[in-house]
Amino acid sequence: MDADLLILNATQLLTCASPDGPKRGAALADAGLIEEGAIACLAGQIVAVGTTDEILAQIDDPDAALVIDAQGKVVTPGFVDPHTHALWAGDRASEFELRIAGATYLEIMQAGGGIMNTVRATRAATLDDLIAQTLPRLDTMLMHGTTTAEIKTGYGLDTATELKMLDAIRLLDGEHPMDLVPTFLGAHAVPAEYSGRTDAYVDLVVNEMLPAIADLHYRIESPDGESTIRAADFCDVFCEVGAFDVAQSRRILLAAQELGLGLKIHADEFEPLGGTALAAELGAVSADHLVCTTDAQLQALAASDTIAVSLPGTPFGLAHVHYTAARRLIELGGALALASDLNPGTSWCESMQIIIALACRYLKLTPAETINAATINAAHALSLGKYLGSLETGKQADILVLDIPDYRHLGYRYGTNLVETVIKRGVVV
Amino acid sequence: MDADLLILNATQLLTCASPDGPKRGAALADAGLIEEGAIACLAGQIVAVGTTDEILAQIDDPDAALVIDAQGKVVTPGFVDPHTHALWAGDRASEFELRIAGATYLEIMQAGGGIMNTVRATRAATLDDLIAQTLPRLDTMLMHGTTTAEIKTGYGLDTATELKMLDAIRLLDGEHPMDLVPTFLGAHAVPAEYSGRTDAYVDLVVNEMLPAIADLHYRIESPDGESTIRAADFCDVFCEVGAFDVAQSRRILLAAQELGLGLKIHADEFEPLGGTALAAELGAVSADHLVCTTDAQLQALAASDTIAVSLPGTPFGLAHVHYTAARRLIELGGALALASDLNPGTSWCESMQIIIALACRYLKLTPAETINAATINAAHALSLGKYLGSLETGKQADILVLDIPDYRHLGYRYGTNLVETVIKRGVVV
Repeated sequence: MDADLLILNATQLLTCASPDGPKRGAALADAGLIEEGAIACLAGQIVAVGTTDEILAQIDDPDAALVIDAQGKVVTPGFVDPHTHALWAGDRASEFELRIAGATYLEIMQAGGGIMNTVRATRAATLDDLIAQTLPRLDTMLMHGTTTAEIKTGYGLDTATELKMLDAIRLLDGEHPMDLVPTFLGAHAVPAEYSGRTDAYVDLVVNEMLPAIADLHYRIESPDGESTIRAADFCDVFCEVGAFDVAQSRRILLAAQELGLGLKIHADEFEPLGGTALAAELGAVSADHLVCTTDAQLQALAASDTIAVSLPGTPFGLAHVHYTAARRLIELGGALALASDLNPGTSWCESMQIIIALACRYLKLTPAETINAATINAAHALSLGKYLGSLETGKQADILVLDIPDYRHLGYRYGTNLVETVIKRGVVV
Repeated sequence: MDADLLILNATQLLTCASPDGPKRGAALADAGLIEEGAIACLAGQIVAVGTTDEILAQIDDPDAALVIDAQGKVVTPGFVDPHTHALWAGDRASEFELRIAGATYLEIMQAGGGIMNTVRATRAATLDDLIAQTLPRLDTMLMHGTTTAEIKTGYGLDTATELKMLDAIRLLDGEHPMDLVPTFLGAHAVPAEYSGRTDAYVDLVVNEMLPAIADLHYRIESPDGESTIRAADFCDVFCEVGAFDVAQSRRILLAAQELGLGLKIHADEFEPLGGTALAAELGAVSADHLVCTTDAQLQALAASDTIAVSLPGTPFGLAHVHYTAARRLIELGGALALASDLNPGTSWCESMQIIIALACRYLKLTPAETINAATINAAHALSLGKYLGSLETGKQADILVLDIPDYRHLGYRYGTNLVETVIKRGVVV
């Protein structure tokens, strides 16, 4: 067998393998540990995974490959961050100080701050400026081990700026080693100019934005020739008091489904409005946040194919004490993923490693559970579980080498970067 | 005026200046912000601080200096971490998993784990091994902006190993750019061989360890000739249920005071035992943890010269909900500092930046308050406030350049490293 990249002698290699879909329930605890592990890659794909002895026996000419010695280190799949708002202009440092002084998220939003603050800056920014402000964040994500990330629109809230955001995501995806997955989130907030007229704004989303986005395709040039891709893979809605109620959310998501987009939903972040049941009912790919979801809705979610995406950075960012009832969801057989929720308001955090540390402490997940949730299950939360998220033959070679002697140091140690080497599609980046 | 290092054009420069001692009460909110700031250094010392125009007007030959352009960036004093257990052998990843499953700190300690786990590994390690395992942690601290750190003994708990730890701290201090301040913490826990005989162990600390340590001096060679320094600057005690009660703590600290050591105390981490009042009574340099301190004792502390050192990484590490009542201490006019408590059990964290982020969220400190607490007040918690901890003429040139446009991004953003350049004694490291 040929290989152009070999990683050998890993003290621990975690495959996170799950050939039949996301890891559900107790399966989340098994990260597929191989001691003295190795992995062989060719042309950006994984061609073999096993012990170092097994791999070396299969490779015809090991000297032809780039060899990384992972002795004393841990090898995992690249992290997949399935829920980010990484694209924005400006910052909200002054609101951070207001919150320290006691203002709540909803109070700041009602005073014209919060999301609308970033919407004003993002509308005013040129495409180039928006890209320039976002690139360092993507670099930081990659350096901390995120090899694939979703990015949502939703700081435009008018058709032109929402399209500008999709253009920016597409251009960034072309320019940056990370794979970026675009999600349309026109229903992130009701913009100031529609204040008190939420249904009219929903009309705009349904009648103008969604058709424009469904029409928008980008041309991709590759060695195999030209192809086109859709501007957005998913449509998301912020189903919350002060944003969109369940009926409005349903209307938007049904229209998006009609146009062939996958569905996501911000559900039960602050109030148990019912977004989780809606996600299960509509067959959404993921339901995200789930901080105050009722047990009945958790049961509906666990019984569905929808991935539960927990974002512990947000309660942490707000110093709240309630987090996703992750242990209960696992007990019910649900499929849990983790994401950063990277955004300029509640969680400016590019690192899935601190998200893992938070999940160990506040969701009471073991390190193995968090790693599966941040890789294979996160990939399924983007409908990419067949292509990446685990170290299995045939998958994309998105791989991390961590400078730790035991995988449980992920979670145990916090606030620093434990990733030593990031490999994206077989290339050290 | 001559300079060999100039930092110019800082969008914000925070001096954290406090010429008359630590910042107390409301003064903590003022970090000495200078816009378009600059700083001039010569031979490792600060020779001028002001606006860029002011500084350039004073320097005879700017081209003779190394010039750092801090346009769009923030300049602060180097962080001082006044409470760490950075020196140890082994790790406690398996206890981390036990805690996730619900075991408490005290349960793990009573089962022979916790501190004793690390004591066994540290006793078994050679001096070289102990140094080799610790060096990467010091590198990580420095890279995240810590330019001075205290390190405690306390993983020996026998005379030979406590002395080995002091030797290691001294050797690391000589080898590493960071300034290291050694603290003797023989009374960190009652070792297994003294189980049920705490007073006998206190006898050992008082009659054997303390005299041996007070006797121990190291020879320092410098361009100015030879001198000697003491092996330990401070003596600390873990005053806690299951460790040392107030009477035992008083006995040890009085003996240390007699031998000329400065005093520190681990007070009120889990139970309000009275260590805080003891610290104030004995004139300790700092009282540390203060999670469950009574209001009466907080008042005594605020009225004293003892610095209150809060360690938010520890409740965070344990996922506890109670933190130091920092706002109350400030209201009472106390002097608050922050530290990492870096240790292999409750808080494996080398970065003062995540400690700042935790303090903003859980102690409700503003970014300016946290920065003062992590610099000038932390220096005073090590009796070094005259020499470092702020950007003032005559002080050591320990300086950070942060790649952020506004100092409030410290705290607001979390989980990554915002420090771009670290300068220790005038040298970029």
